[in-house]
Amino acid sequence: MQPLPLAQLMEHFRRLPGIGPKTAARLAYHVLGMEREQALALANSIIEAKDRLHFCSTCFSLTDTDPCVICQSATRDHGLICVVEEPRDVAAMERTRGHDRSRGYQGTYHVLQGVLSPLDGIGPENIRVRELVERIQTGSVREVIMATNPNLEGEVTATYIARLLKPLGIQVTRIARGLPTGGDLEYADEETLAKALENRREI
Amino acid sequence: MQPLPLAQLMEHFRRLPGIGPKTAARLAYHVLGMEREQALALANSIIEAKDRLHFCSTCFSLTDTDPCVICQSATRDHGLICVVEEPRDVAAMERTRGHDRSRGYQGTYHVLQGVLSPLDGIGPENIRVRELVERIQTGSVREVIMATNPNLEGEVTATYIARLLKPLGIQVTRIARGLPTGGDLEYADEETLAKALENRREI
Repeated sequence: MQPLPLAQLMEHFRRLPGIGPKTAARLAYHVLGMEREQALALANSIIEAKDRLHFCSTCFSLTDTDPCVICQSATRDHGLICVVEEPRDVAAMERTRGHDRSRGYQGTYHVLQGVLSPLDGIGPENIRVRELVERIQTGSVREVIMATNPNLEGEVTATYIARLLKPLGIQVTRIARGLPTGGDLEYADEETLAKALENRREI
Repeated sequence: MQPLPLAQLMEHFRRLPGIGPKTAARLAYHVLGMEREQALALANSIIEAKDRLHFCSTCFSLTDTDPCVICQSATRDHGLICVVEEPRDVAAMERTRGHDRSRGYQGTYHVLQGVLSPLDGIGPENIRVRELVERIQTGSVREVIMATNPNLEGEVTATYIARLLKPLGIQVTRIARGLPTGGDLEYADEETLAKALENRREI
């Protein structure tokens, strides 16, 4: 009994991740209650993001220039590459810089655009490993920080790439594992706690 | 450091109700990972819903025809009007029909497009009360069911309209209040429980 354009809009929202039928309905009614100009701005923003963003030909993160702003920057440390799985991980790392650009991560990135997952048939040829090796062979990179996620696939990928890169004579490091800031010892899982203990440092 | 089209898309998503910054980021990255065709379909669906849907000139619910499908229908009971606050409430009432169209609500609707709220400066002239009175004066309505929400504004609105309509010689009823199906006596608030007791029926 819903008018078709309303049913279609709800269905499109429902396909987005984490959006159930009720949230989809709420979003659709909200859009219909918006000023026409605002609704068009939302629609155009989707089209524009889709049309103007592409992957940086150097680091494979999302960008509207090529190379991306970070790869172009003269103030970043190009001897340092942080390897992450997805473009959103670049945004997470960049947040370490906060409001003070001199703090936090100063190097560049390499976005694998995936992670090794033999069970899903994803091997080194399906992610940007070859491009990483090429960057290192042609550049003046001294350290590669493996910042893939701390789960099985992320660890396997980090280990695989570390073995591949070490013969090239560069330092390969892995981001630390331990208790998250603001976390609670009581609620930490045993794996996290064991890692935190193992990686303890003198204070 | 985010490319502008990405930051703008996140900001547009963040303005939607119930969408925080993290969900907005997740939705934006999801849209960027979609096939271009799918992303355009989402954007066009917003534009189409906005351009093709309007308010029914009889009942003021959302429709892409005029009058709406329900107001046009020969199989609905046009002697019965269910008064609701918003178009989404029509969808909720229609769900009582489930898969069996002979069950559930068989009448028509009137969408007030708001609710009386003196504190917010919303009086009878700001909602579709005049149009409801006109429908009743010109039509052959025998009963009006007040289905505004069971909160202060909804009750005040229901009472106000009931007093306005009763002199016109039609029956005005209010949807029942009580315990929700599947609810738990132990967790019911005292107001709901008191209403359920007060409205008890012989079994």
